[in-house]
Parts: sequence; structure tokens; C-alpha cells
Amino acid sequence: MRAQPSAGEYKVLGWDAVGEVSAIGENVSGFKVGDKVWYAGDITRAGANSEYHLVDERIVGKQPASLSNMHAAVRLLIIGAAGGVGSILSQLALALTNATVIGTASRKESKEWLKGLALDYVIDHSKPLSQELARIGIEDVTHVISLTHTDSHYAEIVKVLAPQGQLALIDDPKIPLDIMQLKLKSISLHWELMFTKSMFKTADMHSQGQLLNAVSAMVDQGKIVSTLAEHYGLINAENLKKAHAFIESGKAIGKVVLAGF
Amino acid sequence: MRAQPSAGEYKVLGWDAVGEVSAIGENVSGFKVGDKVWYAGDITRAGANSEYHLVDERIVGKQPASLSNMHAAVRLLIIGAAGGVGSILSQLALALTNATVIGTASRKESKEWLKGLALDYVIDHSKPLSQELARIGIEDVTHVISLTHTDSHYAEIVKVLAPQGQLALIDDPKIPLDIMQLKLKSISLHWELMFTKSMFKTADMHSQGQLLNAVSAMVDQGKIVSTLAEHYGLINAENLKKAHAFIESGKAIGKVVLAGF
Repeated sequence: MRAQPSAGEYKVLGWDAVGEVSAIGENVSGFKVGDKVWYAGDITRAGANSEYHLVDERIVGKQPASLSNMHAAVRLLIIGAAGGVGSILSQLALALTNATVIGTASRKESKEWLKGLALDYVIDHSKPLSQELARIGIEDVTHVISLTHTDSHYAEIVKVLAPQGQLALIDDPKIPLDIMQLKLKSISLHWELMFTKSMFKTADMHSQGQLLNAVSAMVDQGKIVSTLAEHYGLINAENLKKAHAFIESGKAIGKVVLAGF
Repeated sequence: MRAQPSAGEYKVLGWDAVGEVSAIGENVSGFKVGDKVWYAGDITRAGANSEYHLVDERIVGKQPASLSNMHAAVRLLIIGAAGGVGSILSQLALALTNATVIGTASRKESKEWLKGLALDYVIDHSKPLSQELARIGIEDVTHVISLTHTDSHYAEIVKVLAPQGQLALIDDPKIPLDIMQLKLKSISLHWELMFTKSMFKTADMHSQGQLLNAVSAMVDQGKIVSTLAEHYGLINAENLKKAHAFIESGKAIGKVVLAGF
């Protein structure tokens, strides 16, 4: 990151500093004058190329300490939660994690469907995600799983993700996503392609079968419900065409199934 | 991912299947005829819209099983390992993990410097990374940390990363990086911006000070060595100009330091 001053202004650079505490504010509790400290500084302030620096004690190091395991509560936003993948994903997130699960849908039928799956919140992805989250009183989310139309939601995804948040996606964005937009918040991006394990015969290839078994057991135990929503009858060319046309309409809820020959 | 057949050819689609085993190969050990199974199929084969499918048993689910914790050995490639960040990062990776650590450098002096830090391997980033890794007998790496010139190395990074590999970066690529190239291998991308915690006052902001303390203790215990390589004297405008010019030359090894006023 380059710190470019506005025209006519100047900026003091220097982001790696070692020094001694010469004064502390009245609310400082972790340091006293004379302590030997080091820090990277704060890019919103003047840097360490000046003799004295004002630095927030929370980013300053002095004594050894074990690393923190602090974890913030997980707030997961699932974009396109009413589709085939989203319907199962939502249930798995609710059953296997303590996350607050927020799903998006836009049509009345798909919103009703998600409410039936007991999601914590359902918001409308035809409106700006940040506006919808504000409506339900959620400031930001720690995780986003974007299942569809990631390109059209990208700016809002970056906006609603908390610093150090995580974005997972599975679709094929039609326009390139600018990863520089993820840098300021140190957001990470995760692809999940269901064919990676089988294409590359990865060492953990068997985990894919085991995951299916785990889900199978959950279904048998009634912990998640089938998302079967439309049954298009026998597997033949005509029914396949109908099923694909329906999925491509963007109106599919849950999983579209064909069975038998 | 869309499976588009070549002109004049056809492709059987359908990637979510539930059915019964009607025959098994002679090497199949986990299933028998009559087992009820489900799977996502393999995109390199015909899909489940045909009545009978041939599927590798490793991606098929049947019985409940706990999830695997299998972890492959970590092979970490650090691009630009001889610089200020890379010199400390390399030592931390060697001291705190069991990873095989491979660093890149291009000049004779920087390669010597890295050998002095006891990296497992030093390769030349002025040549294709895949070619250099092949030279030392390493097929692929599980992690890449790219500290500089990520854009010019990007194609090779994607090539040498193993499926489900991880790419971390901190620089400002001058050309957009196409994230679609990461999808086939389900590679994830991680930004680390050293100012995220202080800019957003994150809940784990204090961890930045604690990390510095942990490193401080390691230095005192002799577990990592200072990477001080150039001392440019007092902190004043003239010396700052010299130091910045040197860093921007791309020839800096270790950390460039100024001290006192």
C-alpha cells in the first residue's frame, strides 16, 4: 500500500519502528514511560520517520505473551440460499455451527421456503445487501458464501464483510472480480469446485464420500430435510430439457430431480 | 462450471446422482452390488443423466463415517524471500512449522543471504517457478506467499500450487489477477494487510502487539536472527531519500534501518 498525499499536502512515512515510550495518555494501562516497544504504526496517522509518534497501545508490543485465540461470533450470509445448493448449505450451517445464518432470496415463494428451513434471517438480494442487513440490525458479516450472481453482488459483498472476513464462491462471474477491493480488510477468497478432488485424485479424495455419508446420516436422523422441490419424472431427453430450462429461469427452489428410465 | 462439448460431439450432463450399485470392478473394496449410494460424479466422465454410470469408489458415499483430518505435508514457497518481510517470514516458517520452506531470489548476494538463513531450498525467480521447482525435485507446493511482483509470477503460481492450495499476497499487482484461474484447483487467496487491524479497530487488535512480543522473545532466545542488513544512519530527509531509493531498486536484502534524529 502506498500512502500518497493529496496535492499540496505532505505525509510522514515509515511503518516499522523501534523505540521507547516517552509519554502515555491517561487511559493507557499496558505501558509506562521508559518501556521499550515496537510496532508497525497506523497508516491513518503520521509514520515513524518523525522523532515522536502517537500510537494506540493496542498495536504495540512489549512483553512476551501467548497468542490470542479470540474468535468473534460467526455471521454467515448465503447469497442464493433458496436454490439447490443453498437449501442444503443453509441447513448444514444451522445444524453444524453456531453461526447466525442469513439467507438471501428475492421472490415471495423462495423467501417462504427459506423461512420453512428456519434460517435466522431472510433478506432480499434484489436490494443492496448492506441496506437489507441494516434493516435487520446486522452491521456486518464474517463470512459470505455466494452461490450465484457473485459479480452483480460483489461491491456489496466487500462492503458488508467484516475485516478479516471470508468470501467463498462457486459460480462463474461474467466480469472479472477486482481482488484489490479485498485488500483493505484483509479478506480471503475461497473457491469450492466439487470436481477438484476427483480431477486431481487428491490425497483426501475419500473425504468426499465421507462427507456424503455424514450428510446421509443427518438426513436419516431427521437433522436436515430433503430439498426436493420439483420432480420432473423419468430421465429422458424431453424431461431433461424441461428441467434445465426451469433451473436456468432462476426460479428453482431446492433441488430439481429426475429419476428412473 | 459448464461442460461444453466440442462441435459435433455430445456430453452427458447430470452431476447429482442417487442410485444402487449394479456392478463393481475387481479392485473395488468399499462397496458391493446392491449398496445404496450417492455421489456428485466426475466431470471428466459422462454424467448421471444416463441410466448406468461408472464412478470411482473414492467419491461415492454409503455409510456414516467421521470426517478425515488428513493433512498433507506443507510445502511453502516464499516469493521474494530475501527482502525485509521475506527474511523474517522465512525464519518464522522454519522455526514455527514443519513446512518445507522454499525461498526465491535472483541475485547471487540474495541467494547467499537465504542460504545463511537455512532455508530448505533457494530457487531463482528470474526463471519459471515450475521449472525451478522441478530442478530441485518438488512437484508442487501447498502454500505460496508472494511478497512482490505477484502479477508477473501469477501464471506460474497457479501452475505450481497443488489442488486446494493457498496463496497469500501483500503487494499491489499492477495488472488485475484473474481469480477464475484459481477455480479448477479450488485454490484460496489470502490478503494480509498489516494495517487492517488498526484501521478497523478489530476485536483481535491486541493480537498484533502480542505477535510482536512473541517475535521479540524469539529474537532474545536466539531462535531468529535480526535481518538488519543496511543501516542508513540518522533519520533525516537525505538519508530517507537514499534508503527509499535503495528499496525501490529491488536490490534490498533484509531490512533497511534508520535510527536516531
